[in-house]
Amino acid sequence: MGISPLLTDLYEITMLYAYFKNGKTEEASFELFTRELPKNRNYLIFAGLPWVVEFVENLHFSNEDIDYIYSLKIFPDDFLDFLKGFRFTGKIYSMKEGEIFFQNEPVIRVEAPIYQAQLLETTLMNQVHISSLIASKAARVYTVSGGRKLADFSLRRTHGVDAGIKVAYSTYLAGFDGTSNVLAGKLFGIPVIGTVAHSFIMAFNSEEEAFRAYLKAFPEKAVLLVDTYDTVEGVKRAIRVAKELGVKLKGIRLDSGDVVKLSKVARELLDEAGFTDCKIIVSGGLDEYRIAQIVREGAPVDSFGVGTKVGTSADSPYIDFVYKLVQIGNRPIMKMSPGKKMYPGKKQVFRQEGQDLLTLESEKHTGKPLLELVVKDGKRVKNLPTLTEAREYCLENLSKLPPQLKDIYSKAYYPVVVSKELEELYEKLEKELTEDQ
Amino acid sequence: MGISPLLTDLYEITMLYAYFKNGKTEEASFELFTRELPKNRNYLIFAGLPWVVEFVENLHFSNEDIDYIYSLKIFPDDFLDFLKGFRFTGKIYSMKEGEIFFQNEPVIRVEAPIYQAQLLETTLMNQVHISSLIASKAARVYTVSGGRKLADFSLRRTHGVDAGIKVAYSTYLAGFDGTSNVLAGKLFGIPVIGTVAHSFIMAFNSEEEAFRAYLKAFPEKAVLLVDTYDTVEGVKRAIRVAKELGVKLKGIRLDSGDVVKLSKVARELLDEAGFTDCKIIVSGGLDEYRIAQIVREGAPVDSFGVGTKVGTSADSPYIDFVYKLVQIGNRPIMKMSPGKKMYPGKKQVFRQEGQDLLTLESEKHTGKPLLELVVKDGKRVKNLPTLTEAREYCLENLSKLPPQLKDIYSKAYYPVVVSKELEELYEKLEKELTEDQ
Repeated sequence: MGISPLLTDLYEITMLYAYFKNGKTEEASFELFTRELPKNRNYLIFAGLPWVVEFVENLHFSNEDIDYIYSLKIFPDDFLDFLKGFRFTGKIYSMKEGEIFFQNEPVIRVEAPIYQAQLLETTLMNQVHISSLIASKAARVYTVSGGRKLADFSLRRTHGVDAGIKVAYSTYLAGFDGTSNVLAGKLFGIPVIGTVAHSFIMAFNSEEEAFRAYLKAFPEKAVLLVDTYDTVEGVKRAIRVAKELGVKLKGIRLDSGDVVKLSKVARELLDEAGFTDCKIIVSGGLDEYRIAQIVREGAPVDSFGVGTKVGTSADSPYIDFVYKLVQIGNRPIMKMSPGKKMYPGKKQVFRQEGQDLLTLESEKHTGKPLLELVVKDGKRVKNLPTLTEAREYCLENLSKLPPQLKDIYSKAYYPVVVSKELEELYEKLEKELTEDQ
Repeated sequence: MGISPLLTDLYEITMLYAYFKNGKTEEASFELFTRELPKNRNYLIFAGLPWVVEFVENLHFSNEDIDYIYSLKIFPDDFLDFLKGFRFTGKIYSMKEGEIFFQNEPVIRVEAPIYQAQLLETTLMNQVHISSLIASKAARVYTVSGGRKLADFSLRRTHGVDAGIKVAYSTYLAGFDGTSNVLAGKLFGIPVIGTVAHSFIMAFNSEEEAFRAYLKAFPEKAVLLVDTYDTVEGVKRAIRVAKELGVKLKGIRLDSGDVVKLSKVARELLDEAGFTDCKIIVSGGLDEYRIAQIVREGAPVDSFGVGTKVGTSADSPYIDFVYKLVQIGNRPIMKMSPGKKMYPGKKQVFRQEGQDLLTLESEKHTGKPLLELVVKDGKRVKNLPTLTEAREYCLENLSKLPPQLKDIYSKAYYPVVVSKELEELYEKLEKELTEDQ
């Protein structure tokens, strides 16, 4: 599962050569952050650290990688031994997996000789981006689900294999209870959840025959899909067949129609028949808006199977993460662009009562510092939390989030205050850069 | 790079067991299609076939996979040997890689014993979805680019590793000229393209020093990023430094500001200095709308570096692909849902003059049939086209597309006509299903 060092932009390697060629080995710091939150997001959840750490610990160019790089015919021979010996020997500071973050807050800082720190850019962004994007979307679903169970059903339309795995991971991190993705279950120990498809029901001569076949296969564990033909009739039929076979019905699934009304009818029918333990699962085009509506209307739904709209973060399918040089040697750096402010220097974020404080790393303040050392000399200095631990931490953070930020219908801003020292440094550099021109 | 058979929804495996348990081995046909095109798409491009074929040819459960499946404690022991011996032995009919398709048209049909055909659902959808999604978005960029070169720069914000690779592949298929993704270059032979980042420029004490360092590393091949401080000054400085060093300037890149105006100024300055071969590359938040505008305004841009908005298909980040049972044994099947029409039976698509004709497989018509046999007895029956060949085919298809479909600003519908025979079968089944209730 290791990520190839070639999974990067070519310019990371051309710059690597240019740094090497010019003997440029000064210590540099890069920070990964976003200047603003995406549409429809009042907060973001940091995720993806395990892949970052794994990548930097194992980063090296194989002979095959080097052969390919040389086949491009843009690199002189003097680079060859350098590539062979390349390792990451720097430090990584990071927020905790499952941390909540806001605009301008570094989630990761890399400190290393500049040629090393630069090279990590593309891969780190790629992995943190998809993980944080989906955790942030899933958290919105979690906060409106009113304690109902949530399952990730998105694999068929995630953007490829790695996204499928990261979506299962990140939705679980942000409060989901399971996934349909078997591989993710194997990799992370996430509970895997499965029902049955319309095609199975239709492969038999009648719904009754299909129900019999499925209940025969899973006498105590079957979740029957009841909406293939007529939903109410489907529920009655499921009850009848289960009773005839003398087996338990673990659940029924509704994938279409007016699920609020249908779930109420289904609950009554199930309860009347004594199937009070039978769960009602709803799926089909769900996102936080639809789930909030279903919950608000009092539908007796036990769990939701959530797919494409969360698995692609459809309303905001990317976060504008950037990876910026903030210091080289002792010189703090910032890039000035019209309308794109960034803060220079190595920074820290203090989580205080009702606000975050963005400071220079050297400052001391009250509150909890969010960035901590995770990699030193290229190796992890502490064990990362398990996914279960990270999930607990994430849910604890979500429970403390001000209610207006959890409102999925309106924009709210959490105050990220900039320390006096950092603001003064910004102004000083701004003045210098303006005078230079 | 093989895809694990566990990269699937659990219900594919529970259904596999239920089919097995009930001795259900009838030949079934499933078709992969979308009932409607996404927002802002007048046509779609089929892509992803190489991964489909590779997956089905190699599909088997390893001992480790089986151990995990059994650890779930939902499958009885009688399934064990069946899983060990599982192989795909059926047929796959598919559109050609790079084919244009529309609503209701099957892009793939799987014919196999039902337990096998069912199992492919999630993985096939996952791989065809991301590949076709991105090819379809990239085609819109290609058709407005007016012959300018296009490069995929999206890796940092694609949804993970596999998406990064598929985006490079699919954008190239649909007319891009290269990618920044080195691994995709290695895997597919796509030309890889790279310039230099702002952080490199800022890592030196001055822009001039940075330009010198980069030109020293790549005397004849350097593309300099000129907008870090003041763009016009940056262009002048690039010219001056290149002249002083007596080297060629391959290109300059503009990543911010009024690129139409700046590219005109840059072109004049470069031409005056005799750097008429120096290319102007523009990047930064580009999509088909922005590129069409830049082209319309006559900016002398030679190539565009296109990132996040194309790499995530941001305006329409998913296609509603479904994989539906259409026939079992000799019985054609369709699922009726309110507002969700589908056509039953094994189908073919004929591309005729100005329209597509959707028919039953058995019908004969004029026009080019789009579905062809690619896998038989679980193995490919013909070599798939190379990416270069598929790209040529795709671009040929795009060149024949009616202009109103290529208009990125308005919705246009290509006629997909349903044959009399298929429509009659639909009506017959509709009647039967309605009477059943």
